[in-house]
Amino acid sequence: MAITVVGSVAYDTIETPAGKRERCLGGAATYFSLAASYFTDVRVIAVVGDDFGRRQEAVFEARKIDTRGIEHTAGKSFFWEGSYLDNLNEAKTHNTELNVFASFEPKIPEAYRDSEYLFLANIDPVLQRRVREQMPDVKLVAGDTMNYWIKDHRPALLEVLKGLDILLINDTEARMLAGNNNLVQAARGVLSLGPQTLIVKHGEYGATAFFSEHSFPQAKSPHHAFRAPALPLEEVVDPTGAGDSFAGGFFGYLASQRELTPAVFRRAMFYGGVMGSYACERFGTERLQQLTRKEIDDRFTVFRELTHLD
Amino acid sequence: MAITVVGSVAYDTIETPAGKRERCLGGAATYFSLAASYFTDVRVIAVVGDDFGRRQEAVFEARKIDTRGIEHTAGKSFFWEGSYLDNLNEAKTHNTELNVFASFEPKIPEAYRDSEYLFLANIDPVLQRRVREQMPDVKLVAGDTMNYWIKDHRPALLEVLKGLDILLINDTEARMLAGNNNLVQAARGVLSLGPQTLIVKHGEYGATAFFSEHSFPQAKSPHHAFRAPALPLEEVVDPTGAGDSFAGGFFGYLASQRELTPAVFRRAMFYGGVMGSYACERFGTERLQQLTRKEIDDRFTVFRELTHLD
Repeated sequence: MAITVVGSVAYDTIETPAGKRERCLGGAATYFSLAASYFTDVRVIAVVGDDFGRRQEAVFEARKIDTRGIEHTAGKSFFWEGSYLDNLNEAKTHNTELNVFASFEPKIPEAYRDSEYLFLANIDPVLQRRVREQMPDVKLVAGDTMNYWIKDHRPALLEVLKGLDILLINDTEARMLAGNNNLVQAARGVLSLGPQTLIVKHGEYGATAFFSEHSFPQAKSPHHAFRAPALPLEEVVDPTGAGDSFAGGFFGYLASQRELTPAVFRRAMFYGGVMGSYACERFGTERLQQLTRKEIDDRFTVFRELTHLD
Repeated sequence: MAITVVGSVAYDTIETPAGKRERCLGGAATYFSLAASYFTDVRVIAVVGDDFGRRQEAVFEARKIDTRGIEHTAGKSFFWEGSYLDNLNEAKTHNTELNVFASFEPKIPEAYRDSEYLFLANIDPVLQRRVREQMPDVKLVAGDTMNYWIKDHRPALLEVLKGLDILLINDTEARMLAGNNNLVQAARGVLSLGPQTLIVKHGEYGATAFFSEHSFPQAKSPHHAFRAPALPLEEVVDPTGAGDSFAGGFFGYLASQRELTPAVFRRAMFYGGVMGSYACERFGTERLQQLTRKEIDDRFTVFRELTHLD
């Protein structure tokens, strides 16, 4: 079943110990879409400037991602510049230019209206909410956010959280959002703000899902938490977009399944980890453009073997 | 089969967000022994001062830990003072007094000689090596160390590593020891220094074992890595000794099994995580003194459920 995703489609200039790339295709919605496209149909809502051309468009087309919701407007596309020279786990931002995103008014194409899954990638919560409100009938809504919105745009973000089934954020963001340094207590705090389920991403250590009583209404026994590993990687070329790729693999797999059971959710977390690990293997979206479903399933097997007990 | 452990038996003054305890029983060998004692016979080699009395002795006796190798000498026992007020994942050391450990000459009691397992807890590598040399016939040797020895006592430490089957250290120590920030590459570097197997402890995120071709000589297929989770804890009262308790649970379980197979190793990692998580639930060794095997196996089941895929 189709996913509609709203978020940034952007240019990134990235420096890591492996080298530097100028203005490569990036943005949360781009990474999410590419990762999810290996599992299900994906439709993007974003805005780009007149610097976004055929070559960039072709990246989406090659993965059969619907780009009719990408608005083209005069000006420059969203631009981010960052580096990971000291610490591959945390980007140092040198420059963020919202450009055409500053005045973006998201519109949902008619062809997107029957999407059953909605992903609100990390953008201004005001925009996330507008998209959510225009798609009241979706079956499942997940979303992401970041420290900037948690800290300085809290009221708008709290409104978004009320309409989310699943929130995906990292450790620091979860602690900041709940105002509690203990992850279990922070998770409970976040779940009380609206989402039925919280996924906390731990970067190279994997991710933990915290469930509420509403996560699996059909399940016989309560499910409190699930932890999926990340693959220890031999070489991390560029961690940009790993979290968005995790979200794409996770949500893409969920959307490809008939029912949301605890077992499906767990496998989805593993697929998220798989897509996040692939994203790091080359600069920008290079690796995510070139995968096969067999490579994805092979790595799923490696992940399972990495943590399998008996 | 019996484990002999050499390491510190000490007094700790600890402050955490949950409170403060003055001079409670601590030390790497103490935590290790208590944790391992739920799985197998444990024999301790250490030195204590005349401040170590019947009450402390009774803690070991209650768990049937052999203390004939604990030498009593004039002076004060090893003392450590630290706090975790800002960060529960990392102790801030305020004071370390080696005291009677400064002139310790470890002697192995005759009754310890048939131990098939040897654990070299975190102490001066010169002492670790002396104990190792006095027990040449053990079946399996594991050990721990810390940043101080890696940084300032490298030659002595490298000698110890040559005689180790399994090294247990944390992320920072592994990266420091190999001089490489990538964990997979660092692991390969550490394995080239002697240990057949490296376990990297990630604190609240669990632990990863990196295997070499010598880890399981009998195994049909190669085993590269295994990742065991840690339990997300509702309340961390005091993380002191969690790593030593992990080692005790891990090595204690290994020593209780007939064969060292990949499956046994994996279960041992889970038992390590279980004992580490229990250690954090109360101050000092309080929780480790009061466990039942049923509580341990119940939590093992929780850990398995936390990561089980199908």
